[in-house]
Amino acid sequence: MDRRKFLRGAALGTAAAGSLAAPAIAQSMPKLQWRCTSSFPKSLDTIYAGAENLAKHVSEATDGNFTIQVYASGEIVPGLQAADAVTSGTVEMCHTAASYYVGKNATYALAASTPFGLNARSMHAWAYYGGGLDLLNEFFAGEGLYYVPCGNTGAQMGGWFRKEINSVADMNGLKMRIAGLAGKVMEKLGVVPQQIAGGDIYPSLERGAIDAAEFIGPYDDEKLGFYKVAPYYYYPGWWEGNLLLNCFINLDAWNALPLGYQSLLKTAGAAATLEMLADYDYRNPSAIKHLVQNGALLRAFPQDVMNASFDASQAIYDEITATNPAFKKVYDSQMAFRNESYLWQQVAEYSFDTFMMVKQREGALKMGG
Amino acid sequence: MDRRKFLRGAALGTAAAGSLAAPAIAQSMPKLQWRCTSSFPKSLDTIYAGAENLAKHVSEATDGNFTIQVYASGEIVPGLQAADAVTSGTVEMCHTAASYYVGKNATYALAASTPFGLNARSMHAWAYYGGGLDLLNEFFAGEGLYYVPCGNTGAQMGGWFRKEINSVADMNGLKMRIAGLAGKVMEKLGVVPQQIAGGDIYPSLERGAIDAAEFIGPYDDEKLGFYKVAPYYYYPGWWEGNLLLNCFINLDAWNALPLGYQSLLKTAGAAATLEMLADYDYRNPSAIKHLVQNGALLRAFPQDVMNASFDASQAIYDEITATNPAFKKVYDSQMAFRNESYLWQQVAEYSFDTFMMVKQREGALKMGG
Repeated sequence: MDRRKFLRGAALGTAAAGSLAAPAIAQSMPKLQWRCTSSFPKSLDTIYAGAENLAKHVSEATDGNFTIQVYASGEIVPGLQAADAVTSGTVEMCHTAASYYVGKNATYALAASTPFGLNARSMHAWAYYGGGLDLLNEFFAGEGLYYVPCGNTGAQMGGWFRKEINSVADMNGLKMRIAGLAGKVMEKLGVVPQQIAGGDIYPSLERGAIDAAEFIGPYDDEKLGFYKVAPYYYYPGWWEGNLLLNCFINLDAWNALPLGYQSLLKTAGAAATLEMLADYDYRNPSAIKHLVQNGALLRAFPQDVMNASFDASQAIYDEITATNPAFKKVYDSQMAFRNESYLWQQVAEYSFDTFMMVKQREGALKMGG
Repeated sequence: MDRRKFLRGAALGTAAAGSLAAPAIAQSMPKLQWRCTSSFPKSLDTIYAGAENLAKHVSEATDGNFTIQVYASGEIVPGLQAADAVTSGTVEMCHTAASYYVGKNATYALAASTPFGLNARSMHAWAYYGGGLDLLNEFFAGEGLYYVPCGNTGAQMGGWFRKEINSVADMNGLKMRIAGLAGKVMEKLGVVPQQIAGGDIYPSLERGAIDAAEFIGPYDDEKLGFYKVAPYYYYPGWWEGNLLLNCFINLDAWNALPLGYQSLLKTAGAAATLEMLADYDYRNPSAIKHLVQNGALLRAFPQDVMNASFDASQAIYDEITATNPAFKKVYDSQMAFRNESYLWQQVAEYSFDTFMMVKQREGALKMGG
């Protein structure tokens, strides 16, 4: 298009400029059809919706010019191979939990969730304003990936146990479905970590092949019915004080995108992150009530289990930082903020929440319901 | 455009379809230049950035076809007239705190913040998944407005006091800069609420014209230097357990938008909401440290002040719901969720945070810094 003609058009006012600018718009809004492989089944509707919400925001804002088709775990590749399928270019994009890939490099976990790490709000603060996303994308560039946050579950539950845990000694010898860094920490407590797919957890618990299993939180856990075979429901899931979900985009595909599409993907990812957390925060309250009504026995992890797990986590972090400089660089940044953040959170936020929880227990919040 | 020709083009593959579709794209991406009047000065950079971030996301995603120019409080209309300027069509849009407009109708406050209401995460849960946004937009349609969330400050501080507050009796006769529903609640405790613009708070406290002033939280409060003239810094700001910021769009302007632009505005608002909360959560931790180092004396409100304020709030809500059915409809929905939400929050989220805060106090989180 002739630039002088465009500028003349612009001078004629908004409507004229709009119609003359059309070819330029078309160039910057190319038709794109991407595939996004999810690490999750559709039955985990809240978490699966992360990628679907992102795709919907992108498609609607581009009048359907940029579409992203989401495929459930297993439709293209198995859930735990989602990131590899993006690196290799099988698909342009995946939606996953980066903590699945600690076997490749422990640094992945720092994009998603680490034992005794940040909670959801402090994770977002560090990622978006504390330089976290930049540090992570430096690392992921080496993996052929570009990273966009896409969803958060909030703090998860500690999982389902067939027997009550009264002290750290009761953890010794326990066969527990738990993976990744949390599995390594649990090993130091004498737990024998087991890798079991979501659908196989219930029968394994039922026949006693395992003694315990971590999954997500009330809304997702209720669907699988664990309370019937392992009624002790422990909290908190100290390995997932938050779980930030991750979209990985093939780095070449990312770099080939028009700037407008890059910006839109980041905006849609941030919106999808807020939405997933809100979705869980809306669904979990009624789910925890149903679970308890149906026989789930809510228990806090004993303090010595928490402390032993915390100490074991530090030992794991010491081991990793001693040998993995990429991990250490991101970890040091995240941990420096962790200390500052949990100081401030004690003041306005925690004291407000505590007061409201006391009132909730007193029954004083019921008058509106 | 000839539909058969378009379909033939589409059959040729992505690139051809993209170029043939250009005129349709141009129609759905019209050139628009909107004005957004903010209720805030640029000096409140975190909160002001809410509208700027939304505008940036929209402009980038549309290659500059849809631009929103943000104007600081007072540049077009005074900050407290932002919503009226949208209703009247002076501007297409504003960025404000709906709680400013309780004089028009108390229902406005339910979009932003109410005494002993929801915290940030439960507010987002209720708004996005509990039907809150739909209920609010039913009400706002009657005001000629369409509402899109745009930012959250999180739980605020209780403000700055010249003298220590040891019991609810010390609140009696206090002249405090506080407005809206919180001012009405404070009146029941014997406080004399004062309406004072942000820039006038410091001199008023300094010369003793007022005894106390609420503002926002550490990051914003530090800039104004209140700790020099009213060193007691109370928490929590029970009238703002969260403050959800609000974009109001003139209803006719909203209805005239292409669907793609409507979708993009909502997506950009959700992203800006996540971002503002992350921005505050990143900045407040270092600010609270500076404030305490500079002489601010952190104090929790005494329990009898909290309880008396809670009871006074219920009395205010009883008065409003008895006479304002629009308020009652939205309030009942929000309060029903409040009770459920504070039950669930006690489990995984609160127990994880509590453990991490204990470790923070023990100095055990420092090794990463």
